[in-house]
Amino acid sequence: MTREEVFSYNKHIPTPPEKPFYFGVTGLNHGHIYGMCAGLINAGAKMTHIYEPDKALLDTFLKKYPNITVCDSLEELLAVEELELIATAAIPGDRAGIEIKSMRAGKHVFTDKAPMITLEQLEEVKAVSLATGKRLFVYYSEFVAVESAIFAKQLIDRGVIGKVAHIDIFAPHRLNPDSRPDWFWVREKTGGILIDIGSHQFHQFLEYSGTNNATVTSSRVANYFNKQYPGFDDFGDATLTADNGITGYVRIDWMSPAGIQTWGDGKVVILGEKGYIELRKNCDIGKEKVTNTVFVCTDDGVFTESVSGKVGCPYYSNIIKDSREGTELSMSVEQAYNAIELAIKAQTLAM
Amino acid sequence: MTREEVFSYNKHIPTPPEKPFYFGVTGLNHGHIYGMCAGLINAGAKMTHIYEPDKALLDTFLKKYPNITVCDSLEELLAVEELELIATAAIPGDRAGIEIKSMRAGKHVFTDKAPMITLEQLEEVKAVSLATGKRLFVYYSEFVAVESAIFAKQLIDRGVIGKVAHIDIFAPHRLNPDSRPDWFWVREKTGGILIDIGSHQFHQFLEYSGTNNATVTSSRVANYFNKQYPGFDDFGDATLTADNGITGYVRIDWMSPAGIQTWGDGKVVILGEKGYIELRKNCDIGKEKVTNTVFVCTDDGVFTESVSGKVGCPYYSNIIKDSREGTELSMSVEQAYNAIELAIKAQTLAM
Repeated sequence: MTREEVFSYNKHIPTPPEKPFYFGVTGLNHGHIYGMCAGLINAGAKMTHIYEPDKALLDTFLKKYPNITVCDSLEELLAVEELELIATAAIPGDRAGIEIKSMRAGKHVFTDKAPMITLEQLEEVKAVSLATGKRLFVYYSEFVAVESAIFAKQLIDRGVIGKVAHIDIFAPHRLNPDSRPDWFWVREKTGGILIDIGSHQFHQFLEYSGTNNATVTSSRVANYFNKQYPGFDDFGDATLTADNGITGYVRIDWMSPAGIQTWGDGKVVILGEKGYIELRKNCDIGKEKVTNTVFVCTDDGVFTESVSGKVGCPYYSNIIKDSREGTELSMSVEQAYNAIELAIKAQTLAM
Repeated sequence: MTREEVFSYNKHIPTPPEKPFYFGVTGLNHGHIYGMCAGLINAGAKMTHIYEPDKALLDTFLKKYPNITVCDSLEELLAVEELELIATAAIPGDRAGIEIKSMRAGKHVFTDKAPMITLEQLEEVKAVSLATGKRLFVYYSEFVAVESAIFAKQLIDRGVIGKVAHIDIFAPHRLNPDSRPDWFWVREKTGGILIDIGSHQFHQFLEYSGTNNATVTSSRVANYFNKQYPGFDDFGDATLTADNGITGYVRIDWMSPAGIQTWGDGKVVILGEKGYIELRKNCDIGKEKVTNTVFVCTDDGVFTESVSGKVGCPYYSNIIKDSREGTELSMSVEQAYNAIELAIKAQTLAM
């Protein structure tokens, strides 16, 4: 396999939907909401209404999007007939309630990860989705919004490393404690590190293992350096095994130092029969400002390239299509649910 | 902290012992014996006698060391009075027997890892060592013979990353199946991947965690791509927690592709309160022929350098001193034993 064969691209360029796709927003608590809305807008959707009880969060959002209509209550937002979807990055513990109300009001939902924080919430959301025919789309951003992560899946599907055996996923994050809201430190609000962040990693494991069914074989959480916040985990990890035998390890922490000049040295290593893939998502330590670096190591050599700007992120366009057509182009319903289920089970096992 | 403060060296230069230190060799089954003998000789020891029943292995060794006296039996070797130490890289399952006979003959032992493959062998070796006053030195080479690994310990001791929280150790290896002897594929001879190779990684975990006591919290072995050898593991991993709360993950595999131009992309990541250390021991994929690359990431920046040739490996000189003076400069007796004990427990748990 040559370098050109490894790094061949078919970049996703969004095409706007023929009929306008309107969406509303509620819950600006996590900054991810900006990426979620920008992604949908870039895919051709139109953001028209918002409800946000926190005035400071609302004002900041309105500075960026001044032409959006502000509703006085969630009910008022959900009553806006033309909205097909509600986007939310509310406090994690509150997301299931918003999802359920939105679905019952006839709206699809695009929620930040974690989509919920307990198995009871998960079961209720599943039931309401089934009853209403409305879908839950989850912003597992460390895959759906990261070009190297998406490209790795394409490499696996193209057989570049053969059959996959094992997957390591590392998600260090920078804490910036002074910038965090009160709920950030409270486990009843976040679910804990393996849910709040880890759902990302469990999702990636399912994506790369090519199955939606896996078992958490071990997990841990710890609070090493932030003991003044007893409801906070600054470390978590887990091992898991997929039903096809592929093994995985995920590690999440809040220990990234400022010197790396990004929020975290996120990495993925995927071992296969014919070689391995390594992703250095946000930085390549020791090199200046390079993102989405992909390494492919096979018998033929080591091939490396930054794939930033070369792959595109089809998730947002696919959310629009899936909402309209009932397809599962964005992500299978089962995968979206099973990723958070694994995360909740891992956090529970670790406590 | 500046770059100069991070990368400050105090290179170990061996000084030969005042009184000659003679050692003998038996068991050339693993190629590590060459590194072990060269290390001792470089530290000033004198290799004078050998017993090796396999003529082909012996002949190859004698080409490199033609002036060594060949004994006809292990008993003859062990009867050579001036030998203070026996070096062995016999088949792993046979090592404990050689260690016990050597100690009973009044010799210290320098054995390749794994020093033994069962808990029964471990207990017997411990008892004989205690009864004879003779020491077991283990060639956990991925630490004791790797300058970046040794340097990382110095960085931790100097407080460069503050209190340690978590340690990841990756040891991919290249299989080269055609070059392997029959015993390589038989679990009763090797103990399995977490023992045969993994004892290295458990040793490093103890070294970096600064304690000799840890618990294996989960472990797995698998044979993904070599099912024609049912007694072989081509994958193993484990999580462990030290008695001081430091967590670890070790992953070992036989999946390294030829394209990386070395036997394995061995890496270590050590997370601490003030930053993290990453070691790329044998290669830095995407770069040509660089070894022992150390990255130190703190709030002050990312500092990186290859430390090859700058640190030295004091292990061999310290074996000579410890043999003579009963010190524990090379490695504590407890650490040498506990590393293999963890490895055996992890392999047993995984089966």
